[in-house]
Amino acid sequence: MMTIVPDFGLIIDTHFIWLVRPIMSQVLLTLFQQAENVTGTLRERVCNTLRKAIHGGTLSAGQRLPSSRVLAADLSVSRVTAEAAYSQLEAEGYLQRRVGQGTYVAIQISKPAAIRKSSGQLRLSQRGLAIVQTGGCRDPQQPLPFAAGSPDLRAFPLKLWQQLTAQRLRLQGEKLLRYGDPQGYLPLREAIAGYVGQTRGVNCDAEQVIVLTSSQQALQLIATLLIDNGDAVWVEEPGYNGARNAFTSAGAKLVPVTVDEHGLRPDDSLPTPRLVYLTPSHQYPTGVALSLERRLALLEQARRSHSWIIEDDYDSEFHYDGQPMPAVQGLDRHGTVLYVGTFSKALFPSLRLAYLIVPPALIAAFTTARSVYDGHCAQLAQAVTAEFMLQGHFAAHIRYMRQLYRSRRNWLLTELAQHLQHLVTPLHSDGGLQLGVWLPVGQEAELTRQAQQLGVVTPGLSALYQNANARRDGWLLGFSALTPREITLAVERLRRINAVAASRPA
Amino acid sequence: MMTIVPDFGLIIDTHFIWLVRPIMSQVLLTLFQQAENVTGTLRERVCNTLRKAIHGGTLSAGQRLPSSRVLAADLSVSRVTAEAAYSQLEAEGYLQRRVGQGTYVAIQISKPAAIRKSSGQLRLSQRGLAIVQTGGCRDPQQPLPFAAGSPDLRAFPLKLWQQLTAQRLRLQGEKLLRYGDPQGYLPLREAIAGYVGQTRGVNCDAEQVIVLTSSQQALQLIATLLIDNGDAVWVEEPGYNGARNAFTSAGAKLVPVTVDEHGLRPDDSLPTPRLVYLTPSHQYPTGVALSLERRLALLEQARRSHSWIIEDDYDSEFHYDGQPMPAVQGLDRHGTVLYVGTFSKALFPSLRLAYLIVPPALIAAFTTARSVYDGHCAQLAQAVTAEFMLQGHFAAHIRYMRQLYRSRRNWLLTELAQHLQHLVTPLHSDGGLQLGVWLPVGQEAELTRQAQQLGVVTPGLSALYQNANARRDGWLLGFSALTPREITLAVERLRRINAVAASRPA
Repeated sequence: MMTIVPDFGLIIDTHFIWLVRPIMSQVLLTLFQQAENVTGTLRERVCNTLRKAIHGGTLSAGQRLPSSRVLAADLSVSRVTAEAAYSQLEAEGYLQRRVGQGTYVAIQISKPAAIRKSSGQLRLSQRGLAIVQTGGCRDPQQPLPFAAGSPDLRAFPLKLWQQLTAQRLRLQGEKLLRYGDPQGYLPLREAIAGYVGQTRGVNCDAEQVIVLTSSQQALQLIATLLIDNGDAVWVEEPGYNGARNAFTSAGAKLVPVTVDEHGLRPDDSLPTPRLVYLTPSHQYPTGVALSLERRLALLEQARRSHSWIIEDDYDSEFHYDGQPMPAVQGLDRHGTVLYVGTFSKALFPSLRLAYLIVPPALIAAFTTARSVYDGHCAQLAQAVTAEFMLQGHFAAHIRYMRQLYRSRRNWLLTELAQHLQHLVTPLHSDGGLQLGVWLPVGQEAELTRQAQQLGVVTPGLSALYQNANARRDGWLLGFSALTPREITLAVERLRRINAVAASRPA
Repeated sequence: MMTIVPDFGLIIDTHFIWLVRPIMSQVLLTLFQQAENVTGTLRERVCNTLRKAIHGGTLSAGQRLPSSRVLAADLSVSRVTAEAAYSQLEAEGYLQRRVGQGTYVAIQISKPAAIRKSSGQLRLSQRGLAIVQTGGCRDPQQPLPFAAGSPDLRAFPLKLWQQLTAQRLRLQGEKLLRYGDPQGYLPLREAIAGYVGQTRGVNCDAEQVIVLTSSQQALQLIATLLIDNGDAVWVEEPGYNGARNAFTSAGAKLVPVTVDEHGLRPDDSLPTPRLVYLTPSHQYPTGVALSLERRLALLEQARRSHSWIIEDDYDSEFHYDGQPMPAVQGLDRHGTVLYVGTFSKALFPSLRLAYLIVPPALIAAFTTARSVYDGHCAQLAQAVTAEFMLQGHFAAHIRYMRQLYRSRRNWLLTELAQHLQHLVTPLHSDGGLQLGVWLPVGQEAELTRQAQQLGVVTPGLSALYQNANARRDGWLLGFSALTPREITLAVERLRRINAVAASRPA
């Protein structure tokens, strides 16, 4: 702090002001002008200007400020405004005003230059570290060939969606702006229960449905509520990395279980699971369906060992040859299955609506946890989706998209058979938005690198294995968002890497 | 399984069919008709009908089904359809077809009557139990007097919002339907960084902003990433229960710290915190502002002990007397403050948009964790909000609502002073959407009960204390969503409980 000598204080300060005032005026005026497009009153602007000068080190502790009259003149504001600003900053503790002596800066704040350097500390919790180490889940934001698993949004009935949105707002107005039910908007829950009951054989009522933002949130919620540190969780091998990340984040011990042509094939050597994660309709990424016999065996095991089954029915809407088998949930007689579905594939990803269907005993716990996590889902989006379903648009849209995707899958299979047969071997392709293909042994990394150079994204299969020894080379080609022409162009590009790949040792 | 005697099998079965066919036909026809409004092909309907009959126990293992010709006649479908349905169900493992002998049910599923009874098991993880025990966070879904803290949605410019929504969809179309950036839509992050910099003195750029669904999600994410089991977390006493729930869910040891007229007042006896939770603008629920001196002391402590500070600036937009003090974050020189803001109060709760501003060192970790938790926020809502801010509507809306709420706060204070002075003593009321009042000692429960009988919701203050011994009786009266007339009516109702309350021992 500056020491004020009672007798000379005024003189020194006056002198000081004469010396520095032009500079200070200029600095304050500059800061003030920078703040010009700020909303709010003039007084707020003056306060902001002075605070910035103090925070930024332009004004330091003990420094005397111009009188409110001078400040007003410098900044071209009224004296009342300048006075009010000084009063407020005094109340806030930034300034000190001494009767007959003037206004002084009361605090010292070190310069912001120090911020970045010392802010490099990353002191995460153990759980935080585990989460960061998963690497996260990033869905493709661009529909590039063959980035995996995005619906074709060019075919989405956006006009109709907008009409329903306007209609909902007109009819329900501000009710849809309020806080919503953590479990979800009831008409949507009813529509979902009806839909999964009819099309997937899921046995539930609206009470069991919890509307969430994404299937990822459903998996995270399940993992948090049902898994203790070190609990064994069976995951499909190869399998969905988003689910693995959720379980790992919750401290689970992942147990990879081989997938054969009938789906998950557990053997007796495996530890009893606390939870089993399944994608039974089209296993991700191999596309196989879990056989009825294994479904029943897994349910029986869950009953015996008091474990849980997650049924992630992520894209069962899109099955092309015959019907997908009905949900495992419909076979459950002991409340062991948690069924997860999403609108990200059937409608659009940024809608942020998915659903979790839990056994009756878990409804209250999951609803409470949901309220602690992020409250509830946007009501407008829920109301529009419910209306879209109730008016029959959803079923029509699914039917249309299923045909569209079926023709694209057929086209991709044709193109691969014709031009890339020596390189890729398609896996099951009964349904889904992507097609898995095997590659020659040991060549995934190199072929992917070359594909990338040619502008084609080819997500690898080997990363979907938990066990490094089990890894097989392959790609997971997302075709649903691509027109036949786009598919042809992408395959043409991939043809160029054949020769190089073939010349390398297999 | 039924044993088929080769020679007599046909006879027995034919006989059996003649006996049961009328019944089975009737049951299948009924199930089939129930499924009539199901979308999908006829074959799908036939499959669903038969699956339901098997799942429901109408058809049991070994039972012979009518021939496809008879089934076709019974259900009035073509023979091709009936044949295709049988084939599909055989592929799924439901049926077994024996050449020359007919079609049999291959599996037995126990009756669904057993579901509910045995589904009563609630086997939660330890963390799951802790979360459920918090009781969750339920925001008021109805703007009843005096349910706490909702904006007045009748004053929201819904028409303008709809216009901007339509405009965004027209201009950006399907891009806004895609998967979005886990960190948030860049133009919105830029708008937020500009806004909090100008109005709250927050020192950040768009890189540090993470767009989330709610401040609750921000608190949960912070708790998960930064708190280990048993870590001490300082919380304000009394304080916000949503934050406590988030910390408790993450395994924190809550340390209640008294709040006096200058805000949080730590004493030397407290354990060093891993994290300090602050509502410094208007402390929730007392309304006091944290003094500059204490802000600096808390920052210094955080620097020394490598701890974190959460600044929950939940309703700083609504400050009525003078300006709110700038954010603690703006004083931070060592990257210790995580700043939380929300659009739930400033725009509308069901928008589901809030923001977290983290020190540079934490950006990557928080973005990754966000992607594992629920992916990203709805892009359309983010784009519309960004546009609303950039066009200046946000600042105008805040100004308008601030005046509206100020007049309502004034009206509530007037009414309370005039009619309930003997019962309630208002706390600080410089800002915020609710007003805390003290009640006569020991009377909160009884007065709340009576208020409720009169149709007035009066959230209690005592529940906001962590330490039972520190509890003080009071109410937190949400006034922002109520017109002056609604305030008057509610106060009139509360007047009726005076006599009763006064006659009880204090």
